[in-house]
Amino acid sequence: MSLAEADLQSRERSQRSGREGRRGQRAQAHAATGRPYIQRNIPTYDILSEENLARIEATAERILAEIGIEFRDDPTALDHWRRAGARIDGALVRFEPGMLREILRTAPARFTQHARNPARSVEIGGRNVVFSPAYGSPFVMDIDRGRRYGTIEDFRNFIKLAQASPWLHHSGGTICEPVDVPVNKRHLDMVYSHVRYSDRAFMGSVTSESRAEDSIEMARLVFGHDFVDANCVILGNVNVNSPLVWDATMTTALRAYARANQAAVVVPFILGGAMGPVTNAGAIAQAHAETMAGCALAQLERPGAPVIYGNFLSSMSLRSGSPTFGTPEPAIGSMVVGQLARRLGLPLRCSGNFTTSKLPDAHAMNEGTMSMLAAVHCGANFILHSAGFLDGLLSMSYEKFVMDADFCGALHTYLDGVVVDDNQLAMDAFTEVGPGNHFFGCAHTMANYRTAFWDSEIADNEPFEKWEAAGSADAATRANRRWKKVLAEYEAPPLDAAIDEALLDFIDRRKRAMEDAWY
Amino acid sequence: MSLAEADLQSRERSQRSGREGRRGQRAQAHAATGRPYIQRNIPTYDILSEENLARIEATAERILAEIGIEFRDDPTALDHWRRAGARIDGALVRFEPGMLREILRTAPARFTQHARNPARSVEIGGRNVVFSPAYGSPFVMDIDRGRRYGTIEDFRNFIKLAQASPWLHHSGGTICEPVDVPVNKRHLDMVYSHVRYSDRAFMGSVTSESRAEDSIEMARLVFGHDFVDANCVILGNVNVNSPLVWDATMTTALRAYARANQAAVVVPFILGGAMGPVTNAGAIAQAHAETMAGCALAQLERPGAPVIYGNFLSSMSLRSGSPTFGTPEPAIGSMVVGQLARRLGLPLRCSGNFTTSKLPDAHAMNEGTMSMLAAVHCGANFILHSAGFLDGLLSMSYEKFVMDADFCGALHTYLDGVVVDDNQLAMDAFTEVGPGNHFFGCAHTMANYRTAFWDSEIADNEPFEKWEAAGSADAATRANRRWKKVLAEYEAPPLDAAIDEALLDFIDRRKRAMEDAWY
Repeated sequence: MSLAEADLQSRERSQRSGREGRRGQRAQAHAATGRPYIQRNIPTYDILSEENLARIEATAERILAEIGIEFRDDPTALDHWRRAGARIDGALVRFEPGMLREILRTAPARFTQHARNPARSVEIGGRNVVFSPAYGSPFVMDIDRGRRYGTIEDFRNFIKLAQASPWLHHSGGTICEPVDVPVNKRHLDMVYSHVRYSDRAFMGSVTSESRAEDSIEMARLVFGHDFVDANCVILGNVNVNSPLVWDATMTTALRAYARANQAAVVVPFILGGAMGPVTNAGAIAQAHAETMAGCALAQLERPGAPVIYGNFLSSMSLRSGSPTFGTPEPAIGSMVVGQLARRLGLPLRCSGNFTTSKLPDAHAMNEGTMSMLAAVHCGANFILHSAGFLDGLLSMSYEKFVMDADFCGALHTYLDGVVVDDNQLAMDAFTEVGPGNHFFGCAHTMANYRTAFWDSEIADNEPFEKWEAAGSADAATRANRRWKKVLAEYEAPPLDAAIDEALLDFIDRRKRAMEDAWY
Repeated sequence: MSLAEADLQSRERSQRSGREGRRGQRAQAHAATGRPYIQRNIPTYDILSEENLARIEATAERILAEIGIEFRDDPTALDHWRRAGARIDGALVRFEPGMLREILRTAPARFTQHARNPARSVEIGGRNVVFSPAYGSPFVMDIDRGRRYGTIEDFRNFIKLAQASPWLHHSGGTICEPVDVPVNKRHLDMVYSHVRYSDRAFMGSVTSESRAEDSIEMARLVFGHDFVDANCVILGNVNVNSPLVWDATMTTALRAYARANQAAVVVPFILGGAMGPVTNAGAIAQAHAETMAGCALAQLERPGAPVIYGNFLSSMSLRSGSPTFGTPEPAIGSMVVGQLARRLGLPLRCSGNFTTSKLPDAHAMNEGTMSMLAAVHCGANFILHSAGFLDGLLSMSYEKFVMDADFCGALHTYLDGVVVDDNQLAMDAFTEVGPGNHFFGCAHTMANYRTAFWDSEIADNEPFEKWEAAGSADAATRANRRWKKVLAEYEAPPLDAAIDEALLDFIDRRKRAMEDAWY
């Protein structure tokens, strides 16, 4: 095939296809490339030497032994620590060097989180990578309506957008706060929505022990009691009250997950200069100490319970006092965090698509991309906040959600790395084409082009004139069209009627048992 | 200092300062952090095993030995190859395995490119990183006026923007095409503009041998003939006519630079599927063969002449036939290119801030950021296209230029990595602050906060309400304000009057000696 012929075929294809044909091609591509999770084919980026890692670990051990961590208002947690041999002084717990590392020997290096659709179960740990939506924004925003409080309808919409994307692997948790539902009942509607509108793995509530237990109980209605006791089917994301404090809300939730053999994600949230030192190495050492303590507590509650080593490091504008996200310090710091988690042999949650931008603009994707690449380079296994994160996590953005999901698609290709085999080396193509000719129609191109390159849904690669004639849309405008189209075309995955009924019945009983509370 | 006090001080500072105070603070920060170039403090990202690198190198050697490279219309180049022992068949040159690698032993692993301000000379090679503006767009764009052909005024504006940025290190070359100047005279005005409006290192013309020689001659007027013969003061960026063709325009320009002991940047431009195979490993092997041949030709012209191993790998939309930039395949491929260049012991130019977006939007910075991070991870020493690249290099964007330059600033922090020492580990801060307290006013924070975190000029980290009250500007709008402000405040660096006069006289003589030509 000549260049002209190839060009003609290409133009015919493009005219013939239009929106429908294109969608068909994409659906095909998705079927081929959609995977329940990614197995990374590129190495982790190991930034620090053994010696420097050992210094950070030694500082963490000194913090644990000399400063200690407070475990407030949870006598059971203190009992665990006492029995394990820690020094207790009121709420303050101090740990001999090496003690937590020893306790953590029972924690699995990797585990399966089962989805109600078994084809979508995820492996967390090892060289696996799982992308999960952003978590916890009180607001939602889109470019039509601007920012407003999230509702249960928004919550469901984001689950649908995640479910429809071949590039996310997990339904997430508090994907936005459904502010129109009473605080003490939200968890019921949230867990139900994950089960009803997605067939992927999901996260439960951690805002109190009873809400954690409700979440797990609902998972039992889906998966069966015995299955849940033997397998992870729900995650709970628990935060440290940094610096160096674990409060009872979090430790009781953490222990509820561990007790049920479900995985807690243990996450210090440190803004350097506020909840930790302004210097990266120190903030990382502190986070390491806090995370080890939380993960170890899960092991004391139930040895062998799965647990994820988490991290949420960020910086501050020391000019304005505002938190900053997606900056270079936490991005590069993530690489160290990854090394520390691997040395402990724990699955890692780290970084995500962070930004302080209030719009799905250049600022948002500059910060988000640096931050997200840090997540994949540092070896994170479970990447929360993979899509939708805006305004320092205050807003969940419809447009950024689909932009980020698209970028997660690009990262599938990125994490596949560079394959070196005879086909990829293409010696036959050089022999066929020779100097000065083109590769458009050569046998090697024809055999490989369908799967050769990542094909974005958001990028516009058309020539300027064609793009201009089509209305000069920016990426936010294209993303706006895309999420509306995806929602319009969304179809719920099948759900067993008996399970649905059991869940609704449970929710009804639980809701009737409580007065509405808005705090 | 309490939280409230720290907060109060912060608010007072912010009220007191306003625009002026902020500028003052920034200027101070720049003075502290502006550097002539970066010495990377993080490791390169080595993606492939020794075995796979050897397979790619072996494929490159097979391409060189079995397919060969055409050197068209340059008898001197063929003479060089003949004397070096290559097999010549018309324009086709075939090379015994290992031959080019042997010739390249005379090429320096690193060299200094001198700037007319010695404080701004750059070290190219080793662990050094030099950021240089984008190169070669026929169009320029800003969000007020949209896209239009570039002029010499635009060309000067971009030099001024680069000169004013503490985060770029080099003035670049054909920063945009000054389409209002006759083609055969542009190089004179471009080189003059670099010398006149910047005191940084720069690049000369390569569009013909005589224009390359004019560029070098102008450099001699600035630096002195003997100095130029002994030192690199100008770069020339020469492209391979991929696949596997070197044309006389490029080889004569390359040889002109080498002959004058100036550095040629040798760059295959391969869109996979068009000028090379659709598969990454094959495209990289081809590029490696083409680059080695160009670099070796420079050594044959003048052994020991500095030369830069370049790469410009990109992909295509095999749906529309359009080139794509900033996609994951070339990003991840860059890591391999970096390993190959290091194994040859040559300084590397690779990747840059690539995108196909037609606007300085989310699409632009998503692609640009991934691409630029690949450049710094792969160990590139000279990063052309660090700022301004838009629309697949068809447009030089004013807004993206200042966004990208700001991102280059963030990359200074990123490349500094994570320092591990007693101050950074902050054990004193933990002792002082203890569990549950904040680090705002502690001694360690006070001693470190000024230099603690990257402070972007483009990101808006303010709270939503403050951002909204200030007009809800997006990043492109902020960038628009910024480039106008920078241009308004620009001051030309001093230039010796005698040098200025000599340059103007040279240009005048050369222009008078030629009729205008527009091709």
